[in-house]
Amino acid sequence: MAKYEVLARRIREQITANIWQSDDKLPSLREQAAASGMSLMTVMHAYQILESQGWIISRPQSGYYVAPKAGFLTSPAGHQKLELAEQIDINSFIFDVLQASRSPSIMPFGSSYPDPGLFPRQQLTHSLKTVARTMGSLSATDNLPPGNEDLRKTIAQRYALQGMQISPDEIVITAGALESLNLSLQATTEPGDWVIIENPCFYGALQALERLKLKALAIASHPQWGIDLNALEEALKTYPVKACWMMTNIQNPLGVTSSNEKKQQVVALLQRYNVHLVEDDVYSELYSGSDKPLPAKAFDEKGMAMLCSSFSKSLVAGFRIGWVAAGHMASKIQRLQLMSTLSTSAPMQLALANYLATKSYDSHLRKLRRTLAQRKDIALQSLHTHLPKQVKIHYAQGGYFLWIELPAHLNATDLYYRALEHKISIAPGKMFSASTQYNNYFRFNTSYEWTDKSEQGVITLAGIIRELL
Amino acid sequence: MAKYEVLARRIREQITANIWQSDDKLPSLREQAAASGMSLMTVMHAYQILESQGWIISRPQSGYYVAPKAGFLTSPAGHQKLELAEQIDINSFIFDVLQASRSPSIMPFGSSYPDPGLFPRQQLTHSLKTVARTMGSLSATDNLPPGNEDLRKTIAQRYALQGMQISPDEIVITAGALESLNLSLQATTEPGDWVIIENPCFYGALQALERLKLKALAIASHPQWGIDLNALEEALKTYPVKACWMMTNIQNPLGVTSSNEKKQQVVALLQRYNVHLVEDDVYSELYSGSDKPLPAKAFDEKGMAMLCSSFSKSLVAGFRIGWVAAGHMASKIQRLQLMSTLSTSAPMQLALANYLATKSYDSHLRKLRRTLAQRKDIALQSLHTHLPKQVKIHYAQGGYFLWIELPAHLNATDLYYRALEHKISIAPGKMFSASTQYNNYFRFNTSYEWTDKSEQGVITLAGIIRELL
Repeated sequence: MAKYEVLARRIREQITANIWQSDDKLPSLREQAAASGMSLMTVMHAYQILESQGWIISRPQSGYYVAPKAGFLTSPAGHQKLELAEQIDINSFIFDVLQASRSPSIMPFGSSYPDPGLFPRQQLTHSLKTVARTMGSLSATDNLPPGNEDLRKTIAQRYALQGMQISPDEIVITAGALESLNLSLQATTEPGDWVIIENPCFYGALQALERLKLKALAIASHPQWGIDLNALEEALKTYPVKACWMMTNIQNPLGVTSSNEKKQQVVALLQRYNVHLVEDDVYSELYSGSDKPLPAKAFDEKGMAMLCSSFSKSLVAGFRIGWVAAGHMASKIQRLQLMSTLSTSAPMQLALANYLATKSYDSHLRKLRRTLAQRKDIALQSLHTHLPKQVKIHYAQGGYFLWIELPAHLNATDLYYRALEHKISIAPGKMFSASTQYNNYFRFNTSYEWTDKSEQGVITLAGIIRELL
Repeated sequence: MAKYEVLARRIREQITANIWQSDDKLPSLREQAAASGMSLMTVMHAYQILESQGWIISRPQSGYYVAPKAGFLTSPAGHQKLELAEQIDINSFIFDVLQASRSPSIMPFGSSYPDPGLFPRQQLTHSLKTVARTMGSLSATDNLPPGNEDLRKTIAQRYALQGMQISPDEIVITAGALESLNLSLQATTEPGDWVIIENPCFYGALQALERLKLKALAIASHPQWGIDLNALEEALKTYPVKACWMMTNIQNPLGVTSSNEKKQQVVALLQRYNVHLVEDDVYSELYSGSDKPLPAKAFDEKGMAMLCSSFSKSLVAGFRIGWVAAGHMASKIQRLQLMSTLSTSAPMQLALANYLATKSYDSHLRKLRRTLAQRKDIALQSLHTHLPKQVKIHYAQGGYFLWIELPAHLNATDLYYRALEHKISIAPGKMFSASTQYNNYFRFNTSYEWTDKSEQGVITLAGIIRELL
């Protein structure tokens, strides 16, 4: 790493660690050069880089200052319906949290994935063996984008059963939903464009926007009703928005499933302003009730919605197979994939196609949904029993997350660090927003079997919250 | 799509179709507005976009003009050692060629892959079955970036056998070398940065630069000696280069393997100018002679080289498993991967780790190298026999490509289209360069078993060339 990069990184870390805070004046070029033993040129280069990245700003005749926090426009008080972020910088924190939760000795209340013990390991193994036995020449070109034809057909047929007309030709198989979401966003935006996201939202959206250098318009989503339509329209009216990344079914982290009426309104609004919908639908198989909820794309007649999903939350996480039903964007997305990862692995595509052909997916899903609902009830019961009364638990049907609200003056990130000392993970609200608005929230995974250790974990969490209060 | 985008696209297409050529004056804003029925604002917006993308330029007091062709500085005559491309736009052609070559009924002289029949299908199948049987819970987190530990260790050990010190900790497992190359480039550049590539080079480099909006400095590479060091130094001296994407072993499409001395010089030069090396080393296992050639990274003491490779050309293409030995950039690359594809599939990583543990990889490679060398000789013989004497075949040891030069006034793209009518594919030179310098070259894949049909294919090719002459 070049010297100026070393210095720039050091200063970034200092800003992140609040050693230098918003509006603090940084040491002058000369002072920094003297202190670091680096040349004036090197220091200048480092400062310029930090400026171009939005960490610091220069004021003529005065010097360099730490930039206002992440470029947010915040209103003085009350519930914020629209947040703007010219530059998103939440990544380091997200990675730290994800990294910390990886150890098997950590209680996985913070995990994003359902208990892998709920997946049909034996049948998948069988499919993998069958494929290994019957697979052709392992040619690279057989399952290149758009991906295995049987798999695409099966996915299209599942949508058809819901009454949707999605052709296998508009489906592209990807490395999980994460690749399809990223490719969809890339296909519809250029660096510097405005994109609508929900607030709070899946951290992957924040990461994607940061990586692709997009600007965020974060629209408030309600734990019960979903996105705020007025704020959405206001944003569309005011900004030249290019795309909207949204979860209308079992939203992460809120858990809310929007009504069909709302989905229809969202699609109509976006179409009126010529904005592409990037729909993250990875949890919809984990619905509660009798029918699988429709995605917003079901109401899209112009082919402007890109419906992204995967098998990672409902069947198997490690295969890394997802897809996008991309409408008019299908061929552009294929090309972007061919350029960046070429394709997903052929045996994984074949194994899933084989498994789906056995028709046991639906009975697996029925069992999975039943178990997840039971486990969520048990966890909810335990949390109600042990958490202080000031803590509010937002419950939504389906999925395996609870969205938990601490009193406003508490910081769930503190809770996260303290809990981690006891080998308990939670997913602090800060991960799900480019603003500080959800710093007193956290997401709780209820998918694992509830044991005495889980109960003890909740009691420990409750104790830490009481100390923080 | 917004109106101004529709207009911008239309004009781009017109420029591509040579309706408007370099230095042509475009219709004024008013004329364009009148002609298109769009508002002045819309037209201005479209023109501004085209200007920011480098398609057109504005001259004060005069109006808008089509930019000089793709931003190339071309010298009036002679061999061009350095080509500049502010904007690369070769993708559509590359995709058309790749798409056309996918059908199994097409003779694969244009293919990038070795004959998949040369891969150890049985042993890989066995590994896949073993993994399916013994695999754990299919958890998503077990093989997250940097990837499966056994696999990273085995890769590091193979480098160690060559005398290189590469820690498993600096290796990140990726979806083939294509993902590792793309992530390496992304980790070391920002949109608008200058990057050095070879001319000619692997089209994936051109695509990556286009996708990441980077500017290309294309340094001439010689079929016998590799990159031109003087031109390289000149470019480094003149431009603020951020990264250099290079193949020092069995370069694609030339086939040339650079000497260790040259590799050392390249690394020293790049380090002097603080430029990261993105090394594409996917063909090095297909060497000719007694020892596997070292990568340039072997001479890198500062950890600034990112060595990218994969199993796709030497063991199995469809698994989509590659890696990068990324030096200081390893953690940044892991993060970029976590954000874009999350990880490569766990069973594929495990199956390869299992196969490599059987120790049969090296005996497979010995056999593969022997067969490839034999097939290349047979193909060369046939080409020599049938092609007109004006055609020059550049031969290099190792790999399975021949780089074939037609007389300067012929266009290999014409040959490509004509050959395709006879169900024969070749890889025209245009794919491998952002300039027109190699339009009379094509790449020929010699890895497939030589049959009467192959012989007939060469005779057909020779016939078309004679017609073109």
